[in-house]
Amino acid sequence: MKISKPISPDLAGGFKDYLPEDMIPRQKMFDSIRSTFELFGFLPLDTPGIEKEEILTGGDANFKMMMFKAGLRNDDEGLALRFDLTVPLARVMAFYSDKIEKPFKRYQTGKVWRGEKPQAGRFREFVQFDADIVGTERMSADAEVVALMYETLSALKIERFLIKINNRKVLNGLPSFAGYDAKMNVDVLKSIDKLDKIEWAGVSKELTGKGLTESQISQLNKFITLDGNSAEEILTNLSVLMSDSPEALEGIAELKEIVDNLASLQVPSEFWKIDLSVARGLGYYTGPVFETTLLDLPSIGSVFSGGRYDDLVSRFSAQKLPAVGASIGVDRLFAALEKLSLLKKEKTTVKALILNFDKQAEGYCQEITTSLRKIGIPTEIYLGKEDFLKEQLTYALKQEIQIVVIAGSNEMSKKVAQIKNLSARTQQEVAFEQIPEVIKAIIDSSTVA
Amino acid sequence: MKISKPISPDLAGGFKDYLPEDMIPRQKMFDSIRSTFELFGFLPLDTPGIEKEEILTGGDANFKMMMFKAGLRNDDEGLALRFDLTVPLARVMAFYSDKIEKPFKRYQTGKVWRGEKPQAGRFREFVQFDADIVGTERMSADAEVVALMYETLSALKIERFLIKINNRKVLNGLPSFAGYDAKMNVDVLKSIDKLDKIEWAGVSKELTGKGLTESQISQLNKFITLDGNSAEEILTNLSVLMSDSPEALEGIAELKEIVDNLASLQVPSEFWKIDLSVARGLGYYTGPVFETTLLDLPSIGSVFSGGRYDDLVSRFSAQKLPAVGASIGVDRLFAALEKLSLLKKEKTTVKALILNFDKQAEGYCQEITTSLRKIGIPTEIYLGKEDFLKEQLTYALKQEIQIVVIAGSNEMSKKVAQIKNLSARTQQEVAFEQIPEVIKAIIDSSTVA
Repeated sequence: MKISKPISPDLAGGFKDYLPEDMIPRQKMFDSIRSTFELFGFLPLDTPGIEKEEILTGGDANFKMMMFKAGLRNDDEGLALRFDLTVPLARVMAFYSDKIEKPFKRYQTGKVWRGEKPQAGRFREFVQFDADIVGTERMSADAEVVALMYETLSALKIERFLIKINNRKVLNGLPSFAGYDAKMNVDVLKSIDKLDKIEWAGVSKELTGKGLTESQISQLNKFITLDGNSAEEILTNLSVLMSDSPEALEGIAELKEIVDNLASLQVPSEFWKIDLSVARGLGYYTGPVFETTLLDLPSIGSVFSGGRYDDLVSRFSAQKLPAVGASIGVDRLFAALEKLSLLKKEKTTVKALILNFDKQAEGYCQEITTSLRKIGIPTEIYLGKEDFLKEQLTYALKQEIQIVVIAGSNEMSKKVAQIKNLSARTQQEVAFEQIPEVIKAIIDSSTVA
Repeated sequence: MKISKPISPDLAGGFKDYLPEDMIPRQKMFDSIRSTFELFGFLPLDTPGIEKEEILTGGDANFKMMMFKAGLRNDDEGLALRFDLTVPLARVMAFYSDKIEKPFKRYQTGKVWRGEKPQAGRFREFVQFDADIVGTERMSADAEVVALMYETLSALKIERFLIKINNRKVLNGLPSFAGYDAKMNVDVLKSIDKLDKIEWAGVSKELTGKGLTESQISQLNKFITLDGNSAEEILTNLSVLMSDSPEALEGIAELKEIVDNLASLQVPSEFWKIDLSVARGLGYYTGPVFETTLLDLPSIGSVFSGGRYDDLVSRFSAQKLPAVGASIGVDRLFAALEKLSLLKKEKTTVKALILNFDKQAEGYCQEITTSLRKIGIPTEIYLGKEDFLKEQLTYALKQEIQIVVIAGSNEMSKKVAQIKNLSARTQQEVAFEQIPEVIKAIIDSSTVA
């Protein structure tokens, strides 16, 4: 089956490879996230990449625009690739409703696809990392999600970030507070959501364009700029300001409870604040909403966002199933960690390379290799096409492997090896039996340093 | 956006969910495989789920039958879902040929899709876990792959398995040895490959049907049944038997080298054997081939298979890039580990549940929760809708959480909590400051036991 004309080995537009130098730090990030999520008692779930199209769209034709269809050639089974991990969670909750104990605290990570038209800088495949608590209306669950966000980012060694907290119920009180038609609220919130990007002058101009009067806009400005010396004080002032809206007052009481819980959960107050401009998209959330700002990289946007959505399974049943959760945009977070120098490209996880330049001594080199692996040291024996010591050493340097073991016939007959520490530029002759412990000592001392 | 008619929350046919009770042991398996692969110096790679169709098919129209196309609605960009991890590796090697140092030892895991017609018991999404060494012709690389297979299965605590080793070059010598047309060899090998399932009587019948003479079949039988007291003896006898085929002799010399290397790599001889009936599919492999049999579950088939394929990038360039590797069928391996009782369903990774039945004491319970998490104990605070201690305890039992902490207003005022060990059926009152260490001691003693 030879092909006459070579095929160009290109990626499809909007997709990305992760070579080892990126995957090694990415996996460190994944491991850290997973261990924090498990510390908080979230359990792993996995669902297929492909779902029935109507499951994903909920029957809403507009959704289809952002989906990748999937199917056999000439055969439309109505399948598509998932675009998030929340809809599959909803399906799981509806399908296994008798089997899954509630509250159900699950995390899930995996690829999701967005059917964007390919264009520069827009990706069509992402990895998400989600945690959700399903089946509870308690505000302590919402506080738990905020605490999880705090611990996850802290465990990744990010020092300066802010979790911004608001409540959709408070925002739902805005029409009656500012005196405009409730039907306009989605449009108004879309503008307010842009405050970070276009400042109040820009928001105000948009609102005028959408038909709001000067006095309505001035009321909204009063709301957005409301402040206080503490979260408690902001909430107290807010409850005076919005005393005419029962829904807003309910939202304020919920925020008050979250604030109290965050103290007990020991989330330091400098890492979160009540921010009344946060709206988080459109019809999805029904209560508290959360997003993050990395204070040294504000322009990168929110890397970890979420909130409460009490209609999770509504497309599958009349039953109400309340839920709260948050999602990490893994690619954005990874970019941020690289920019903050908290993760850097790493060429290898290999600690020692055994050179393999003397066919007579290959078995001896394999014995050394195995003795290192037996004590848990990631070890490579040179298997490439270079036959000479010098070229193999160049490979070690290019691959940034710290320790090199040299053993030819001469070393084999003496039952020793030369151990080269390439970072310290030292070399020593070591007896065969001592090789593992000497190398372990070099690794341990480098890790501490 | 309310939907009038509820959508049925069904999975598409041929797909599978993994609830936590399956995902917890699956992740243990993944972690074990990954750590063995890294011990051997394999580095992680990730590529997209979606590739250009011609990359996947290599321009071969027959391949399209087993692929899932992927695309935007009404827009055929010629994209499809990957059906293995080897073709993406080939693309990566061709695309980044200047950037990647060789030999390139990479591992990759991820979902792959096969566009089968949906039918009972046939899945259309799988997880694979592959390791390959690219850019080397050395037989010590092939031996390294066999050693990796041995260590991976051993690390998963499988005690009785056999890695069967053969060489396509030896099989390529069969036409001249048995005296049939070389063009028939693919068909002949297809029959021989079934020896495990249909025994020699079945194979012989098939071969007669394919037009082989009695004497040709008898020669093949002599080949298949060739034996010896050791791998070395088998290879010596084989080189006598096939002395007329230079290609077979080359294959035998390669096998001899692998056998020698396996001793140096300390792969015990009872875990592998030369098996001349192993062919591993059709045109793909060009040298040594490997497959595994779990001796207590022979019918499950090979869970870890591979071999040498020296034409990896041939569809992308005229360059020859030799490679050797192996792939784990993760779903099959997981099924095997469950049947062998080496992995079992686990409801939770949570070690302690803090009950939360007294609103006055909720903050106190959150402090206890945080104090456990701070020392690394996966801890859940009850966040569900049950208000009473008894129902919350039932949740702990159903979720199989070992330790329960009970703290209401009474305990809070005394700065204590009741710690219940549900597996040992003991309960003790412990001062707030001692709670983490007492719980840690219970966990440590249960892990040892």
